[in-house]
Amino acid sequence: MQFSKGHGTENDFVVLPDPDGALDLTPARVAALCDRRRGLGADGVLRVVRWAALGDGPEPEPGVEWFMDYRNADGSLAEMCGNGVRVYARYLVHRGWLADGVDLALGTRGGVRTVRIDGDEVSVDMGRAEVGEASTASVDGEAFAGVAVDVGNPHLACVTDVAIDQLDLTRPPGHDPSLFPHGVNVEFVTPVVGDEVRMRVHERGVGETRSCGTGTVAAVVAALRHAGRDTGTVGVSTPGGRLRVTVTDSTTILHGPAVLVAHGDLDAESLD
Amino acid sequence: MQFSKGHGTENDFVVLPDPDGALDLTPARVAALCDRRRGLGADGVLRVVRWAALGDGPEPEPGVEWFMDYRNADGSLAEMCGNGVRVYARYLVHRGWLADGVDLALGTRGGVRTVRIDGDEVSVDMGRAEVGEASTASVDGEAFAGVAVDVGNPHLACVTDVAIDQLDLTRPPGHDPSLFPHGVNVEFVTPVVGDEVRMRVHERGVGETRSCGTGTVAAVVAALRHAGRDTGTVGVSTPGGRLRVTVTDSTTILHGPAVLVAHGDLDAESLD
Repeated sequence: MQFSKGHGTENDFVVLPDPDGALDLTPARVAALCDRRRGLGADGVLRVVRWAALGDGPEPEPGVEWFMDYRNADGSLAEMCGNGVRVYARYLVHRGWLADGVDLALGTRGGVRTVRIDGDEVSVDMGRAEVGEASTASVDGEAFAGVAVDVGNPHLACVTDVAIDQLDLTRPPGHDPSLFPHGVNVEFVTPVVGDEVRMRVHERGVGETRSCGTGTVAAVVAALRHAGRDTGTVGVSTPGGRLRVTVTDSTTILHGPAVLVAHGDLDAESLD
Repeated sequence: MQFSKGHGTENDFVVLPDPDGALDLTPARVAALCDRRRGLGADGVLRVVRWAALGDGPEPEPGVEWFMDYRNADGSLAEMCGNGVRVYARYLVHRGWLADGVDLALGTRGGVRTVRIDGDEVSVDMGRAEVGEASTASVDGEAFAGVAVDVGNPHLACVTDVAIDQLDLTRPPGHDPSLFPHGVNVEFVTPVVGDEVRMRVHERGVGETRSCGTGTVAAVVAALRHAGRDTGTVGVSTPGGRLRVTVTDSTTILHGPAVLVAHGDLDAESLD
């Protein structure tokens, strides 16, 4: 089984090329692959498959050749992943399946996304982010004012002047369960200064992560709003690296690095 | 840069073949390789090098072709690693550099070790384990009687009837600093029943690990002693899998699995 390993701001993936849909990728095998000691280790698996060969899943859309079959580390299906899309596109270029500088329309379970590779940076259209109600998150009894932002998944983005490096995010921040009945991803973000912010994120069901694509978008939407702005481009320093987010009237775009570290062959039987 | 990834009872390694000593393996590059998100991820790196090509290090011994240049995940040098030796030997067989079933004499910074591959199992002579003074470890204010065991590095092995699965090992167990001035690895092991024990280990400077070669040896030496025996073979179930240890009058032997999961090529520049 061929593989590559890559990451976007330290959100890391095992990439499995399967253009003709020949792989039998069971949840157990995905979990073994993503196990950081027994397998290769990753936050998730990106199966690179032609949409026409996907099998179970959304119907192919005309003119969209590739589909990102994204699996979480526990083997479950996932809709979309902003960092995963960027690594996926980098992989297509690496294989010669996509020309550098050409826009890619990529099928995902969260809809078709447009991706552009420009040198070290890969940009993905994340769609419109919907701002919802004001709410608060709590950490160690301290309350942080925030706002609900829907980026295809639910976020509570809190702009704060406190030293976010000092927050203890080993446990999930408290939130209003009536507003977020299925849990929420929580961002703590500094106010915009010189079109730059810093961010930490706690992902529901995961814990603190080094970076989160949708969380970065939610953080910038909230930080711009906090600064009295609706649109703009803001750099975001996360523990895993620096991204940029552009917010326009109609959509959001996530820009950032995507790196392939290694390529090789897996002994699939060794994972069983 | 060629690599393989493998593990012994979930103690995992990046293997770098470098028979002629051509690699420039800086501590920074080792740390980047072992980073579980930015690199490949591992507990350590095993550089596979002919002893004559090692460069800095112990003088080659006659008749010993290969040397295990083991690096910790932080880039520092390490002397010996019982799980690493087994993965190293498996790799030599994989490459055709060692015949299956042939004893291997392997140079390490902790001395020459004898290794044997027999099907799924790899055995390594760990040398004599020296039993020292009785002492106690403490977890959440509870004291556990144990004994110092030197397996080239210091251990405090505590045989206990308590449910070791319930112990909170997120913090280092308390120990007597006058007996262990440089810290100590602490094992909690169940009494021998039917020549089997269960074990958990807290490694100094690391935290709880899924398995530890020298810790497994120390645990069996202590458990045999607790049962009034000096020698024997005992199976050890660790969180990472099952090993066996044979204790004789003159030495100890660690038996267990060693698995290669993947082989490939690294983009070394992507790590910088």
